[in-house]
Amino acid sequence: FIFQRIGLSGEGTDAVVILEKTPFQEEKIPDLLKKPMNAELQMHNDIYCTFYLSPPPELSEIKATVVYPATEKHIQKYLRQEVHLIRETWEDYKNITLPFIHSQSFSIQWVYNILEKKAETDRIVHENPDPSNGFVLVPDLKWNQNQLEDLYLIALVHRRDIKSLRDLTAEHLPLLRNVLQEGKEAIVKRFGVPSSQLRIYLHYQPSYYHLHVHFTALGYDAPGSSVERAHLLADVIDNLAMDSMYYQKRALTFPLRADEPLFKKFQEAGRL
Amino acid sequence: FIFQRIGLSGEGTDAVVILEKTPFQEEKIPDLLKKPMNAELQMHNDIYCTFYLSPPPELSEIKATVVYPATEKHIQKYLRQEVHLIRETWEDYKNITLPFIHSQSFSIQWVYNILEKKAETDRIVHENPDPSNGFVLVPDLKWNQNQLEDLYLIALVHRRDIKSLRDLTAEHLPLLRNVLQEGKEAIVKRFGVPSSQLRIYLHYQPSYYHLHVHFTALGYDAPGSSVERAHLLADVIDNLAMDSMYYQKRALTFPLRADEPLFKKFQEAGRL
Repeated sequence: FIFQRIGLSGEGTDAVVILEKTPFQEEKIPDLLKKPMNAELQMHNDIYCTFYLSPPPELSEIKATVVYPATEKHIQKYLRQEVHLIRETWEDYKNITLPFIHSQSFSIQWVYNILEKKAETDRIVHENPDPSNGFVLVPDLKWNQNQLEDLYLIALVHRRDIKSLRDLTAEHLPLLRNVLQEGKEAIVKRFGVPSSQLRIYLHYQPSYYHLHVHFTALGYDAPGSSVERAHLLADVIDNLAMDSMYYQKRALTFPLRADEPLFKKFQEAGRL
Repeated sequence: FIFQRIGLSGEGTDAVVILEKTPFQEEKIPDLLKKPMNAELQMHNDIYCTFYLSPPPELSEIKATVVYPATEKHIQKYLRQEVHLIRETWEDYKNITLPFIHSQSFSIQWVYNILEKKAETDRIVHENPDPSNGFVLVPDLKWNQNQLEDLYLIALVHRRDIKSLRDLTAEHLPLLRNVLQEGKEAIVKRFGVPSSQLRIYLHYQPSYYHLHVHFTALGYDAPGSSVERAHLLADVIDNLAMDSMYYQKRALTFPLRADEPLFKKFQEAGRL
């Protein structure tokens, strides 16, 4: 990805232009290897060599996304932002993060719509209807379901009183074990992907404060699957089984963009 | 990345050809936006639109790596391999993984060469010479040190009796705290990167069984930084402070390629 800020035709109006090289299309590879084109030898050592090729226009492709006219807000959104790690103690959570969550009116009506069958009913892959220990499994909106390489599903729990990992105790083990076990079974049954090829995890911080679990294809480098944001559900279960208060004692690390409101709260509290 | 197996000129000899689209070069972007080229409108909605562009050969580039002639081993190496997650209990570690580690003669002479100042002495960024609680910090070979975006350093501990995360107990806390604290300080001093922008972690399984810690730029999506392989050093320290035997009790998840010898050991043991 690269981001460019340009003024179009001297009007003084900004546009955001995002350019991306698209992936190779497998069926075009034979053409690419057959076509005569400029090839510059870079390195030759024993059986190895590297070239730089300049493919003809019909075999290379760039996707351009244009936002025009773009406001300052659009430009800020696409500008690279510094990201910092926060190491949040339980005290930080109580004094900084929790008041922040309460002060925000994050709307999670879309979650309730799914749980109440008011939306996306035809997309439900699996449901356990138990009000305390049940959940709904749906494909994530980022996944178009056309290929298994980037498989991405979300389990939304029916209970509405669990904001995040921080609220979990041993009381929630039956719920978490249901999500792990039934989620795996439903995905192998519907999509044929075995559980050993699934990455099953929670985010901290989550992007919305209603407990949910991510299921992604192991071969897919899903955004948010890095160690600084993701917590394997199997590890969460083992930690809670060992110590019910594990997530009310432990410091947790997470990344924040410097322009996020929660980042400013940690800054104001002198925790950065 | 894509991989192609082709027979060249009917000789019946295989070659491995790896094609990669190279990243955009920032200085060529203005040319790219000025040049008249075929642009196909894909979507238009309000202020957003997307196009597909076909850039001229001089503005697009493919890197081709050729291995020729390629043996079956080369081809296997580059063929896509299935990856599976293993959930290794402590019993699995004792019965399967540990005997496997002992049966292998992984050479880590290169590590000892660094620790004994027989190699890479000019590359050392920081050293704490204490034989029990000291370590050496060096740039990883994957990092060319030309830009900070993909900053990557490795701390190699002086002690030679710690194979991996599995061996760690509270006894090692002074060592681990030195690595965390002095590693951060050395990196901000030498490279100006603050510790809040560093991802500091161990791999399990590691690629060699001499305890080492990875320091990578937070903005760099470093290979092996996913939740299924990486363990934040700060978490490891807190877990050990809470329970000295944490890593001798807990199940640990890690990925294995289906062609790795350790994978076959888990298969033979009926653990897959």
